[in-house]
Amino acid sequence: MKKIIVILGLMSIVNVSLYSQVVDKDSPLPVVNQNNSVTFRLYAPNAEEVFIKGSFLEKTFQVRTKAGTFGKTPKARMIKQGSQWVYTSGPLDSEIYTYKFVVDDEEVNDPQNKNIVRDVDNYYNYFIIKGGIADNYITNNVKHGKVSKVWYPSVIDGMPKRRMTIYTPSGYNAANHLYPVLYLLHGSGGDENAWEEAGRAIQILDNLIGKGVVVPMVVVMPNGIVNLAAAPGCDPNNPDVKPSAMNAESMLGQFESSFVTDIVSYVESNYNVYKDKSHRAIAGLSLGGLHTLFISANNPDLFDYVGLFSAQTTNTLNDNRITTLSGLANEVEGIASKIPFLGGTKLGEKINKFTGKFNNGNIGVYGNIDEKLKIQFKKGVELYYIAVGRDDFVKKLVDDYRSKLDSSGYSYYYNETDGGHSWENWRKYLVDFLPRLFRK
Amino acid sequence: MKKIIVILGLMSIVNVSLYSQVVDKDSPLPVVNQNNSVTFRLYAPNAEEVFIKGSFLEKTFQVRTKAGTFGKTPKARMIKQGSQWVYTSGPLDSEIYTYKFVVDDEEVNDPQNKNIVRDVDNYYNYFIIKGGIADNYITNNVKHGKVSKVWYPSVIDGMPKRRMTIYTPSGYNAANHLYPVLYLLHGSGGDENAWEEAGRAIQILDNLIGKGVVVPMVVVMPNGIVNLAAAPGCDPNNPDVKPSAMNAESMLGQFESSFVTDIVSYVESNYNVYKDKSHRAIAGLSLGGLHTLFISANNPDLFDYVGLFSAQTTNTLNDNRITTLSGLANEVEGIASKIPFLGGTKLGEKINKFTGKFNNGNIGVYGNIDEKLKIQFKKGVELYYIAVGRDDFVKKLVDDYRSKLDSSGYSYYYNETDGGHSWENWRKYLVDFLPRLFRK
Repeated sequence: MKKIIVILGLMSIVNVSLYSQVVDKDSPLPVVNQNNSVTFRLYAPNAEEVFIKGSFLEKTFQVRTKAGTFGKTPKARMIKQGSQWVYTSGPLDSEIYTYKFVVDDEEVNDPQNKNIVRDVDNYYNYFIIKGGIADNYITNNVKHGKVSKVWYPSVIDGMPKRRMTIYTPSGYNAANHLYPVLYLLHGSGGDENAWEEAGRAIQILDNLIGKGVVVPMVVVMPNGIVNLAAAPGCDPNNPDVKPSAMNAESMLGQFESSFVTDIVSYVESNYNVYKDKSHRAIAGLSLGGLHTLFISANNPDLFDYVGLFSAQTTNTLNDNRITTLSGLANEVEGIASKIPFLGGTKLGEKINKFTGKFNNGNIGVYGNIDEKLKIQFKKGVELYYIAVGRDDFVKKLVDDYRSKLDSSGYSYYYNETDGGHSWENWRKYLVDFLPRLFRK
Repeated sequence: MKKIIVILGLMSIVNVSLYSQVVDKDSPLPVVNQNNSVTFRLYAPNAEEVFIKGSFLEKTFQVRTKAGTFGKTPKARMIKQGSQWVYTSGPLDSEIYTYKFVVDDEEVNDPQNKNIVRDVDNYYNYFIIKGGIADNYITNNVKHGKVSKVWYPSVIDGMPKRRMTIYTPSGYNAANHLYPVLYLLHGSGGDENAWEEAGRAIQILDNLIGKGVVVPMVVVMPNGIVNLAAAPGCDPNNPDVKPSAMNAESMLGQFESSFVTDIVSYVESNYNVYKDKSHRAIAGLSLGGLHTLFISANNPDLFDYVGLFSAQTTNTLNDNRITTLSGLANEVEGIASKIPFLGGTKLGEKINKFTGKFNNGNIGVYGNIDEKLKIQFKKGVELYYIAVGRDDFVKKLVDDYRSKLDSSGYSYYYNETDGGHSWENWRKYLVDFLPRLFRK
């Protein structure tokens, strides 16, 4: 290992206190200090300015982008010390935090931190502050479930097979016992690996089932991006292995309308699971919350447990203004054009692909939502769970959606938290949601 | 996207040709040119010198280290053009190649290439040159098997559960059909994810089974590092999620001696597999080659197909000089001390942990290897496959081992290739090995 001795003292001056700092550019970083503050260091002797950006700075962040956050992107200037750049945070709560460096305007990972996680189409370094909520997110000495990547037949255009992640709890192989099922959906830019990798769903399930606070269940994590059959590196239609970007096409109903025939049927044919409403749950974050809302509303006999985490419950989709597919597409395109990472998706050009598939130009799963909700709540939902952060950019949409539910007298459980549109929140929502399932 | 206009011309000079170059620091990289040369670019306006190091330069590389390679590390100087550094390779054969940049003596990933793979404890960017061998390594429109991460009970110290990867071929669920099994082992610094991630084993299996050139089989990829229960992020004994480093303790016989009771038993109890020698194969690379050699030699009734890929068939272990565990540990430590990444493992201190576990100080699985091989070959091996690269640092050891086999008249299949101790070779060996299995 190369060590660079930086002599900060000036030895030729009388009464000097010799201060020599050993800069080890190869030592693992960052360092979690005793008070749970964290010190970051980057060896970059010739850089002119270096920032750190990270979720631990994101108390008030507004909107996520492919680069993690945009709008008020929280970043902090690092201080040059010899050949290194240094930043020390304040004391941090228990959590898994992500970060990157910005060196002379270029985002780079921390070369000395080998813990990396992908979110959307970007990789972040992460570190863990234990001693609290994050203890649910690490692998502990408990019984472990099995995680499988399976391909299922799909009716979605050009994707005869799509990939999903399935968790079966410890002991599952002891067959002739049936399990309840949770369908757990990701957000825009995610895929079938998102809940496992960024969401820590496997560790959360193992830990909470191990503690006995969550009922052993099968958890199904499909890929809700309609034009990607699988995560980066596993999609035959994208052999060049480009990670998925945001995808406004996935708000045009194709995933929702194919969900039962594609996914529920596959799971119920291939796994030891109950096949009744009281043993089925569905939940999703952001785009997956939108999918969850409409899948459950269109199938009022299917799910007794519904979870909307920071759901994109857009006005477009929860009122009855829009009555045609092209109207919907225009509306979605209008929304998309205002969000940088959704711009340029040319939805208009793609409408023909979908027209005819969903009631010949009718907006299919998105149509008549008020009537559908009426039926859904009349038939009964054991738990209708809504969670959102006070700083989340979808907060207003969720408020509007709650007003709609309130005005009709539909009851739901509401969990309003600090923070924004972030994995920090979605992991917490999952930890809060899971123990409430299958208790009837 | 931020574009930076670099004006290279000087507009105030008469007869100037205005040269404006648009540097898009956010465009995906690298670019594969028409002749299969590859152009790499890095935005680093203030760097003093930038190199690229990568497997595409590694025709003659000798030894791998935690940083990828050491010894004659192949790296090439990049040329500064405006705010970017540029390098264009010569035309490259079809392959998956890995690379990193070295910016002012610090190794960094390519911020614009989102394709990343871990090897040992480091992350590399990669790119794919299609049109040849690499077509086996990408996900194609074929039937896909299922990949599962399972935990099995283990007798290894302090690891009541260990994690492994299991591939079941397409159609496996159609039960009451039995499949043959390949046990596929990784090298030092690898884990149960290595063959899937760096080795592309899943794609290789799907593609070759899909073409009908490989018999559908179950493939079991355990973790052969004895002091890690699982890959980074999944090991309860290492909750801080540090990727595994090299591990000389894994050359002390514990994995080999527990293999049948831990792993083969689990697989044969939980999967629809044949349970006879003619339907079992075992193969491994490097350290996994050593494991393969001794597991198969100690269990002459178990495996009809044996594959040694760049195997660490050290003199220590294939002669009869060493007769005690402490003698073995000293020998392994002697080897380890010469290899930088194995130094300082303090094996001596750890011997007590193992003593008593393996015949009270006897070297257990490593003892009497000549006699064991005699029995193994007398009982018969359908295929004993040895592959190594001419530039591999274990080539001499493999030559010595082959001499031993030759002198006893044991027959084996030998595949000597270009290249060194690399995933490029191990993937090729797997592609060559698989079609030879279960043909009896």
